[in-house]
Amino acid sequence: MTGGKRLPFGSRRGFLAAAGGLAGALGTGVDLRGAQAKSADQAAAPAAAPVTEPFWGDHQSGILTPAQSHVCFAAFDLVAGKADDVAALLRRWTEAAARMTKGETAAPLGTDLSVAAVDSGDALDLGAARLTLTFGFGPGLFIKDGKDRYGLTAQRPAALADLPAFTGDQLVAAHTGGDLCVQACADDPQVAFHAVRQLARLAYGAAELRWLQSGFSAEPTHGETPRNLLGFKDGTQNPITAPPKGHGGGSTRPMLAPEKVLWAGEEAPVWMRGGSYLVVRRIRLSLEHWDRTETDFQEQVFGRHKKSGAPLGGHDEFEPLDLKATDKDGNFVIPENAHARMGAPASNEGAQILRRSYSYNDGLKFLAERWPPWRQGMLYDAGLLFLAYQRDPRTGFIKIYDMMSKIDALNQYATHIGSGLFACPRGAMEGEFIGQALFKMG
Amino acid sequence: MTGGKRLPFGSRRGFLAAAGGLAGALGTGVDLRGAQAKSADQAAAPAAAPVTEPFWGDHQSGILTPAQSHVCFAAFDLVAGKADDVAALLRRWTEAAARMTKGETAAPLGTDLSVAAVDSGDALDLGAARLTLTFGFGPGLFIKDGKDRYGLTAQRPAALADLPAFTGDQLVAAHTGGDLCVQACADDPQVAFHAVRQLARLAYGAAELRWLQSGFSAEPTHGETPRNLLGFKDGTQNPITAPPKGHGGGSTRPMLAPEKVLWAGEEAPVWMRGGSYLVVRRIRLSLEHWDRTETDFQEQVFGRHKKSGAPLGGHDEFEPLDLKATDKDGNFVIPENAHARMGAPASNEGAQILRRSYSYNDGLKFLAERWPPWRQGMLYDAGLLFLAYQRDPRTGFIKIYDMMSKIDALNQYATHIGSGLFACPRGAMEGEFIGQALFKMG
Repeated sequence: MTGGKRLPFGSRRGFLAAAGGLAGALGTGVDLRGAQAKSADQAAAPAAAPVTEPFWGDHQSGILTPAQSHVCFAAFDLVAGKADDVAALLRRWTEAAARMTKGETAAPLGTDLSVAAVDSGDALDLGAARLTLTFGFGPGLFIKDGKDRYGLTAQRPAALADLPAFTGDQLVAAHTGGDLCVQACADDPQVAFHAVRQLARLAYGAAELRWLQSGFSAEPTHGETPRNLLGFKDGTQNPITAPPKGHGGGSTRPMLAPEKVLWAGEEAPVWMRGGSYLVVRRIRLSLEHWDRTETDFQEQVFGRHKKSGAPLGGHDEFEPLDLKATDKDGNFVIPENAHARMGAPASNEGAQILRRSYSYNDGLKFLAERWPPWRQGMLYDAGLLFLAYQRDPRTGFIKIYDMMSKIDALNQYATHIGSGLFACPRGAMEGEFIGQALFKMG
Repeated sequence: MTGGKRLPFGSRRGFLAAAGGLAGALGTGVDLRGAQAKSADQAAAPAAAPVTEPFWGDHQSGILTPAQSHVCFAAFDLVAGKADDVAALLRRWTEAAARMTKGETAAPLGTDLSVAAVDSGDALDLGAARLTLTFGFGPGLFIKDGKDRYGLTAQRPAALADLPAFTGDQLVAAHTGGDLCVQACADDPQVAFHAVRQLARLAYGAAELRWLQSGFSAEPTHGETPRNLLGFKDGTQNPITAPPKGHGGGSTRPMLAPEKVLWAGEEAPVWMRGGSYLVVRRIRLSLEHWDRTETDFQEQVFGRHKKSGAPLGGHDEFEPLDLKATDKDGNFVIPENAHARMGAPASNEGAQILRRSYSYNDGLKFLAERWPPWRQGMLYDAGLLFLAYQRDPRTGFIKIYDMMSKIDALNQYATHIGSGLFACPRGAMEGEFIGQALFKMG
């Protein structure tokens, strides 16, 4: 096997969930810092890592950017009366985002901050922490309650179709939808939250926060594939977006072709070409139930061994899945409804999405368990903030998750509570604002 | 002025909130990593920092331990029928904690994890991340609903008095109380949450999770005093627990005398001597209201300048507060109800507590604003998880917060939603379990 467990620095940037990009649907983001080795007792000096990510460019940052350790995702409802007000908001957001991603305040400060607040100040001294801000447009920007509020209905991309109601969906309004969204990723949770707060303040009168979710990713000490809250390695099957550096090109894992599966092309409205569609799912995991489940059964659910990450019956994390192998009784070694089978390329006609997910932990809520002992009480409100980018959700997430929602064994432990679909337009060049081409055409 | 804005490495360990230890009551924890310099564009190699903290010892770790960047705090209700079951739980917890704080699984794993789960596995590969686990006993261990469930009522310390109902308290059961608590602090949020999950699983049949709160602290790039979510520096007035290294002893800030203000002594039951009392408050901050407030007014509320952290009228963060200074009209320069005045030593007869607080961000909730525009809708459920240790809460937190709860100008923006008081017993020596002396005497 090539690849091995200790990937060279840089090789794990921007994992792509392969054909069946949800395998595992429950992945946490990959943190650049996680790829830096630490010794057992001392944190070794990490390789120098940039603390700023670019803002201006053909594509928005925060999509192919190596995943930061924290996310603060926010969805907004538009209350602006006319298209010009929406455009003005996007200009304010763009200007503030360009500053904050450099580690600056949302707007220039007055002397000693003793003038009207232009920035809440809680990220002063924290640097950029690799902040990226990625903006998206929900269906409600184009049409809401049957109304073409901003004269943009004709510009709605066909790919921004409403997500279907999937089997098992338990969506609540407080974690679902939104006319606009911002994905703030940073290596410091206070930096990410700060950015969202400034954008929310700049939206007064034009848009209001609808829902907000923070999340985190684990940081393995030796660059291993990160594990999700279920304890399984997550991202093993994902193709890589850049050839491993200093590795002699030995990896056999498939490469991402962004132009093919990530960026909207000629099929999209002009303003959207070079952009990508974001699917968001807030997936609660029944950790109490999972923690009562024997490891053997957990491994049947995933179709992989827990500690090594190898396919059932295998020994190496990066072994190919043998979906045809059977045991002495003629049963599949990797069960028919195993999560890894659901996500395997052979199961999804090659559909691909770029996954960028984070775990979340919002404490306890009064909930009822779906499984014995059917306890009602304070249960974990924790799980996965699933974030995935793709050229077209109809041939990406929807294609992959339709079958998965019906038969994936993991569904016993996972409940989709929130959902969103957003068209993230192409990046802005300096002087433009995000989505400008849409408004010039609208 | 001595001290200066850039403290030498190590000098900010274990800040103590001075007389009026709540100044500011809204502080985030201090992260060791935050004291390591980073250049503007590159994260410089940090000084080698230990990734494990000791577990065994005279005092529990997680009290004087330099604050980690994340916390997961959990409170439990006891359902055990008899004292032996509680003691057995504490032994299980102690054994698991000793392992996990070394970066090990909660119990030894079977081959390739393919036996019944003894650990959920989500912290494999993550190392210890400086995990500390600090255990506390709530009043309910000693008496609940008038019942002496475990024959321990006689051992209840006088200092474990029920907290009074403070002015403005808006406590809800879902964030209040608990018979037992665990404070898990680590430099990786997944490590902290993992530890709580294992302890919760080990408690099946003996104790159930009651509430859980995760939090984070900011990590300033050049070792500045961290800012809270209100954007003010927090911890400026705190005495230090160790002399600054390589600094020639130039700091004039008061030192902590742990034996005097932190550790319970002869006045306490034997099992509690060397322990400390933990007050927890979940304090929601009205960030929308704060973000609409002019900086001038914010500075009047705090009694300090926002950017520099200097007392009003001053220039240096570490200038002493002049509580007698008046302006040309005879008004106090630092207003009578300013937060900094409330927290000043002169205002609290020298009361001291050791503060170890974190910010939290739990997204949005449907809430009503208390102030114009009196909007009801989705508002931030974010603020401060206030954690403070002391030798006696009656002369510590209660003493300080009684006046503060009535007149602190900051109360306009802060609502105490949750609360807890716990007796954290002395540390355990290898082979003992936490609280063992209590059960041998009970």
